[in-house]
Amino acid sequence: MYDGVIQDLIDELGQLPGIGPKSAQRIAFHLLDADPDDVKRFAAVMVEVKSKVHFCEVCGNVTVDVQCRICTDARRDDSIICVVEESKDIIAIERTREFRGRYHVLGGAISPIAGIGPDQLRIRELLGRLQDGTVTEVIIATDPNLEGEATATYLIRMLSTLGLKVSKLASGLPVGADLEYADELTLGRAFEGRTSIAG
Amino acid sequence: MYDGVIQDLIDELGQLPGIGPKSAQRIAFHLLDADPDDVKRFAAVMVEVKSKVHFCEVCGNVTVDVQCRICTDARRDDSIICVVEESKDIIAIERTREFRGRYHVLGGAISPIAGIGPDQLRIRELLGRLQDGTVTEVIIATDPNLEGEATATYLIRMLSTLGLKVSKLASGLPVGADLEYADELTLGRAFEGRTSIAG
Repeated sequence: MYDGVIQDLIDELGQLPGIGPKSAQRIAFHLLDADPDDVKRFAAVMVEVKSKVHFCEVCGNVTVDVQCRICTDARRDDSIICVVEESKDIIAIERTREFRGRYHVLGGAISPIAGIGPDQLRIRELLGRLQDGTVTEVIIATDPNLEGEATATYLIRMLSTLGLKVSKLASGLPVGADLEYADELTLGRAFEGRTSIAG
Repeated sequence: MYDGVIQDLIDELGQLPGIGPKSAQRIAFHLLDADPDDVKRFAAVMVEVKSKVHFCEVCGNVTVDVQCRICTDARRDDSIICVVEESKDIIAIERTREFRGRYHVLGGAISPIAGIGPDQLRIRELLGRLQDGTVTEVIIATDPNLEGEATATYLIRMLSTLGLKVSKLASGLPVGADLEYADELTLGRAFEGRTSIAG
């Protein structure tokens, strides 16, 4: 529809996750209006990220160094590892300020449909980190969906033979939600995991 | 939160229109996973667009040539000009296949709050195109909002002195909408502009 390179840009933007044709057009025109130096800097950052970023050799988190900033932070607790699917999950957990241990990024979840089995995940690396006895507790923080639950079940079965403390994040009602609108699975989990208050 | 350049990329993405922090993070990780050549091509297109694209010297549409592909299309009707606010509006109208004339892009709409008056718009250029008598009809297709209506009113007043046929796009109920949920302004417009069927 648009002249050559304008349509190219809209097409490129439209391939990004969550960007439909209308958003792609809006962003393209935003870039057309923007300062050329700003656009150049943005383009440079995009290319730079690809060349500089790789996975932390210890935990699998994204980093620009050999090890990520959490693995190199001496103040964190070495005895506890929280296992997550993706680097993004680390950021979400860090935001809670509830956890001061280390992380391990699996790089996905078990999904027979997508052809992802335990061998495609960083499970061997996790076992390697549990060898020397420093780690005494593993918290499984996979997503509360089908693939995440399958992965959690697999990990729990494997880790329970190692004599470690293994736990899993609680399922239940989201804070601030209406009980009335909770789906039955969530509500069922909230009952299962109810906490005793008295008596 | 993230290591240097990853956070830079998320920040850059977060400045695009309609992209919140979560979307920015999702797109950043999509780019991290993408093929380096794809990202390089995307970055190159972004920079290329800035250097190649400018405004058509006739109508003000975005183009990579001196004149846009509509102005250079010999099959289009020279006697009728459709006046729009932005290049994006041309694409929307072209999609209807209802109009085969020429366009004129104002580059915005009159908005006292934003400090945009008639002099900031390409109105002088429009008058220039109406000098030689080729154009016999002008269709005003500004946005049906406050600024667009103000601009339409201004243009209609100005153009009505030139002895041209001047029209404005119809306001009314959107096709497929529920009358019940129409806002009162739209419903009011639909009454005003009702079309006589019989008698």
